[in-house]
Amino acid sequence: MSKSIFYHAGCPVCVSAEHDIIDLVGTNNIEVVHIGEDKSRIDEAESAGVNSVPALVTPNGNVLHINFGASIADVRG
Amino acid sequence: MSKSIFYHAGCPVCVSAEHDIIDLVGTNNIEVVHIGEDKSRIDEAESAGVNSVPALVTPNGNVLHINFGASIADVRG
Repeated sequence: MSKSIFYHAGCPVCVSAEHDIIDLVGTNNIEVVHIGEDKSRIDEAESAGVNSVPALVTPNGNVLHINFGASIADVRG
Repeated sequence: MSKSIFYHAGCPVCVSAEHDIIDLVGTNNIEVVHIGEDKSRIDEAESAGVNSVPALVTPNGNVLHINFGASIADVRG
């Protein structure tokens, strides 16, 4: 199975959701990307359909926006 | 491990998220509750902190609001 990708920006909402998602999905099944620190991946996230963080992109390409930490526009700054 | 509870109201956003979450978490690890059909459980969902559906309440009691289908007020009708 290909991995899910969890995009976040280090906000408290993101960190809390990250722990929950990793507990549920398993740390081996997920790649965690901090787009606040690694801004080179913001375009990738946006292309995948991510409008806000935290968000989980599933192996089949669906985007699950989880709670609300920050919009992509805010992360882009 | 105790189960997560996935609350939804049958909306298209809910159904799509339900499939994704079940794929990720495993059908044995989740209880699916349709609060549009089983309105007796709306109070339970709200007490757990669910403000909108679809939402996932994790085994440790955290609420992950996933995308946005409908507010609890709209489901209550």
